[in-house]
This record gives sequence, C-alpha cells and structure tokens, in this order.
Amino acid sequence: MAAWENNVRKVVPYTPGEQPKESGIIKLNTNENPYPPSPAVKAAYDAFDNAEMRLYPAPDASELVDAIAETYGVNSSQVFVGVGSDDVISMAFMTFFGSEKPVLFPDITYSFYDVWAEVYGIPYVQVPLKKGFRIDPGDYVRPNGGIIFPNPNAPTGVLESTDMIETVIAENPDSVVIIDEAYIDFAGKGKSVLPLLSKYENLLVVQTFSKSRSMAGMRIGFAIGSEKLIKYMNDVKFSVNSYTMNRVTIKCGAAAVRDTEYFESTVAKIVKTRENAKKELAARGFTFPDSQSNFIFASPTKLPAGKVFEELKKRKIYVRYWDKPVIRDHLRITIGTDDEMNALFKALDEIFKEA
Amino acid sequence: MAAWENNVRKVVPYTPGEQPKESGIIKLNTNENPYPPSPAVKAAYDAFDNAEMRLYPAPDASELVDAIAETYGVNSSQVFVGVGSDDVISMAFMTFFGSEKPVLFPDITYSFYDVWAEVYGIPYVQVPLKKGFRIDPGDYVRPNGGIIFPNPNAPTGVLESTDMIETVIAENPDSVVIIDEAYIDFAGKGKSVLPLLSKYENLLVVQTFSKSRSMAGMRIGFAIGSEKLIKYMNDVKFSVNSYTMNRVTIKCGAAAVRDTEYFESTVAKIVKTRENAKKELAARGFTFPDSQSNFIFASPTKLPAGKVFEELKKRKIYVRYWDKPVIRDHLRITIGTDDEMNALFKALDEIFKEA
Repeated sequence: MAAWENNVRKVVPYTPGEQPKESGIIKLNTNENPYPPSPAVKAAYDAFDNAEMRLYPAPDASELVDAIAETYGVNSSQVFVGVGSDDVISMAFMTFFGSEKPVLFPDITYSFYDVWAEVYGIPYVQVPLKKGFRIDPGDYVRPNGGIIFPNPNAPTGVLESTDMIETVIAENPDSVVIIDEAYIDFAGKGKSVLPLLSKYENLLVVQTFSKSRSMAGMRIGFAIGSEKLIKYMNDVKFSVNSYTMNRVTIKCGAAAVRDTEYFESTVAKIVKTRENAKKELAARGFTFPDSQSNFIFASPTKLPAGKVFEELKKRKIYVRYWDKPVIRDHLRITIGTDDEMNALFKALDEIFKEA
Repeated sequence: MAAWENNVRKVVPYTPGEQPKESGIIKLNTNENPYPPSPAVKAAYDAFDNAEMRLYPAPDASELVDAIAETYGVNSSQVFVGVGSDDVISMAFMTFFGSEKPVLFPDITYSFYDVWAEVYGIPYVQVPLKKGFRIDPGDYVRPNGGIIFPNPNAPTGVLESTDMIETVIAENPDSVVIIDEAYIDFAGKGKSVLPLLSKYENLLVVQTFSKSRSMAGMRIGFAIGSEKLIKYMNDVKFSVNSYTMNRVTIKCGAAAVRDTEYFESTVAKIVKTRENAKKELAARGFTFPDSQSNFIFASPTKLPAGKVFEELKKRKIYVRYWDKPVIRDHLRITIGTDDEMNALFKALDEIFKEA
C-alpha cells in the first residue's frame, strides 16, 4: 500500500438496488412509481430553453423551494432541497449529528443510515424493533446525539402514529429528530408529522419526489423544519457545493409539486393496487406486516425468500432481497401497475407449482 | 441557544458569484461560457423520454463516464463524475485529505478550498504566491497531507507548466496531488497534465463542463486519475449518495463531451475575444497577469477596483470583485461575446471619463 493511502477515508458503501440496463424487465425492486410524472413536468421540460444551460442555476433553487413551500403551507426559509432525499439526509447527518453520544435508529430500517454514520464518523446504536416490526418510543428515551427513522419504516412498510412520534420528539428536546417520510404519501392524508413543526424546532421532516411524484430519475428530495434547522443545513450545504440542483431539475420539480390533482390520483391508483396485492399475496401463503407504503415486505411460506427472488429474476421480474439476519425470510415487493402485479402473481403461481 | 445546537457543524459557507434574476444583464462575473452548449446537447435533450423520469438513473452514470473516458483516451475505471467540479473536489477532500498534516494550496486561489477544509476539519496551510502570482514548486516540498491548486490558477488566470507541476508531484509521492483544471481548455492544446497520469498514481486531475462546454446550468464535473484513486472516491461517493447524476444530465453530458468540433470552435472564439480584450484593457490603463483562462484578473489604475465594480453594476454589467487583502485592487472579468466585451469597454470609457 502506498503511503498516500494511509490518509484515505476507507468505507463500505451502500449498495443500491439493481438498475438493469436490459429492457422488458418488470422492475419491482427500487420502489419507483410505475406511472410517469405529471404532464405539467413534460410541459416545463419542453418549455426550457437549452441555451440557458450555459448559465449557473440559482444557488438557492428558489423556484423549486418556493413551490414546495406553497404546496406544504410553510415559509420558503423552512425548506431545504437536495439531490434526492439521500443528499438531504446525508447533509442532515453532517450538520446535526456532531455529538459524541450515539445517534439512534432502528436495527431494521433504511440501510443507508449506518453507512452515513460510518462515513462521517458518527457514533450510533441500532435499536431493535419490537414484535410486528414496531418502534417502541420508550427505546428512544436515553442519552443520544440524534434520532432518525422512516415513517412508514422501510423495508417493513409499517406506519407509526403521529402521537407516538410526538412522544419521541417531546422526550428529546436536546437532539435533532429526523422523520424520513419518503413513503408517507402512500399512507393516506393526514399521516405526515409536518403539523408538529409548529411545536418543535428540533424536528426535521424529509420527503422525496422519487416515489409519489414519479421523479426518481431527476433526483429531488427536500426537508422541512424550523427556520433555524434549515439555516444550519444550508450553511453546510453551501460549504460543500453551491449549486446542487440543475436548471432542468428546478423547473421540472416546481411543475411536479404544483400538480396536486395528478399526484393524488396517481397515489390513489397505487394504494388501490397495493390493497389488492395484499389479498393476492396472502392467498399465496405470504405473510407481511400491514404496509402503508408503495411496497410490501412479504415472507413466502412455501419456499425460501432467496429462492423465490432468484426464480422471479429468471422470469425477468426484479424484487428486492437482502441476505441478512432477521430479514432474509422476506422480499420487498414494489407496487407496480395492475398488469405488472398480475404478471408477478402468475409467476409466483408457476414457481410454487414447480416446487 | 438550544442544547441540540451544541451538536451542529457550524461553518462559514462559500459565497458564489451573484446570479441576478433580472434580465438584460451583461454577466461577466461567474466565468460562464457566452455561447450555448453544442447542438448535440439539444438533440439529446429533445430525444429524452419524459416517462423515464420515474426510474432511478444508473448509479454509475456509465453512459457519461464512458463518453468522457473515450474522449480523453482513458479507461472508464479512471473517471469519476459529480454534480459540478465542486462536488468532485469536495468528495476528493473527504476521500484523500485524512492526514493530520496540513493540506497545501496557494493563498490566492479558488476560495472554496479553505471552506472545504473547514467543513471537513482538515488542517491546511495557504502558501503565498510569488511575484506575478506564480506558484513556486519549492514551496510544496514540505510535510503535507495533500496538495491542490488550479491550473490555470483562479482568479489570476496564470498557467503553470507541466514540468513545474511534475516537479511538485514527483516530490510528493506520499500525498494525493489534485490539479484543478477547470479552465485548462482555454490555455491551448497540450497544456493539461493528464499525460502525467501514466507515471503517477497519486495524481488526480479535475475538469468541468461548466466553462468550456457551456453547461454550468447542468452541473457536471469529472476527475481522471489512477484506477485506485477513483475506486476510493467512488467508495466515499456511494457512502453519501448513490445517484448524483440525473437522467437528463447523463444524456446531455455524454452528447456534449462527444462533440469535439463544436467544443474546439467555441473555445477558439473565446480565446480570440480574450486576446483582444487584453489589448483593450491595457489601452484603458488596466494591468493584469497574462491570462490563459476565460477571464482576466485586471487592476484598473485610474480608479479603485471597488468603484469600477459598482459603476459597472449600475450599468448592468456584472464582474467579480473581492474586498480582500492583496486582491482588492483587481476585478475578475469573464470573457463574454465580442458584443458584450465592447459594451464593457464603452462603459469603462464612460466611467473613467466621468471620474
């Protein structure tokens, strides 16, 4: 090893879900939306003048920030935007988790949290979930340097109540509490903890355009919090990269977030398909916690999950599988279109019949 | 101050050049290219299917990486891409500058270097430039945790020779040496230190699409280095954000870098305008080091630089001015179109006449 390598930050990176380059795949592995973005996005895209690419974008991405603020009824100074919610959460780890006490998050959760803690040298404790993959607020009453969990949780799809989350926040006035609401729009209206922002200045709510707004390919995430939290995040962000959101993304993102009607109808379709999928999967012997997201964390009882994963892949149907303790009995199946889900059910019948 | 604020990473962010929202501005303040991107970019943009926005991009951005690798005659495993060269350099600071010895860079240089060092807690020493804003390689022969400087340097525009830079690299086999070539394309062919990559595995060369390729608004930067360096950078990158380059950016960037003819003709036009601007500025009493970039770091002798900056701004002509020691006598003037530069000269005549 060369001497310069001693100074290298050595890490084990997060492994994202497979993004196959071949076509004809039924892709139920990365929780993408099966429907295209709002027609308003295409209109904004087409109206963009290419010659403008030569100019830097607005560093504050104000057009997008303002559109988000208006849609969610907050001030623009309460909104932070980033290159997907991963960028937003990564910035939040850097900004808020500077304590020597450990940051707390569930043991079964988004598997990027421990990667961010490692890369930034942040101590952390992975708190075991309770029966039924539930979060026990009592587990988060202990000295800590911050708290983060998704709601609904991933990859379980389990939703916790605003009351439970308020308990966690109220017990932790000395820490920043981050609620990662990547999937909240699939849980029905009124489930977000955004209303708690009026009471707690240490609460940061993170959401994304990648799921409910069909824009994973454009990389837009955002956080809403107190003006103070957002100011601290922006100071760190502007110490890393002045211009993170490009001109096309700003225009398309603003158009997307303003089209509430399309958004609601798309989400409703996915929820309907999900509720049907619960019945179909149960009929095929799968067990799963009740999902309030755009995926189902389902355990096949007839064959090992790893085997079902491989067999589905042979049939060009991709779902997500982790060969890890506790969760290796499960598959995380994204809700696609009705046609895609029917193809999945047919493939499962074939696989179980052959077994 | 609330207790949670004790854990916040508190920093003084970098201040980017002003991005005025009003129209009718002659914008010579952020080194943008006055010409639009290649027509191939527009073709790629128009050919993009909006429905694809619903899918995550390729996390390795391989289409863009491969296009850069082919254009520069290196392997794809030697190319790292990011959200502008700021993202690339920020990642490089995080990845390579983990020593307790100070990182070295010039005192007059890109003013983001010390901001990155601060945000990541990296010790650093700002090495004074020599007469004529020159870098003395002897100043970089001392214990250090890494070296970075731009070539041509910013905001001076001064180009150093490949031989000088090779001396610095050869003297520092135990450090990663980063040469920030944001402006190298304006220095003429054969000035990049890319050929040194075959000899030094600790050399990282960073370039950008924001200047010579007219794509500041799309945020694309890249680094080329040894396979080993790029692997380390990707490990850190994939520990921060899996998907940094969005689908549109990947397509447009690949199209841009493959159009060498357009690129060369645009750069040639800017160089021609720059050489003429040197004469015109000298005729108006400005002094400046010889610029090999797309800007001129010029000191007005007839009036204080701050005054000229303000007077130009009143006339809707923006240039860059820093009210800082040593450089407060200078303006950094980006090379625009011939028409824009003529408007600048006319405004200067007016300002000096009134004075």
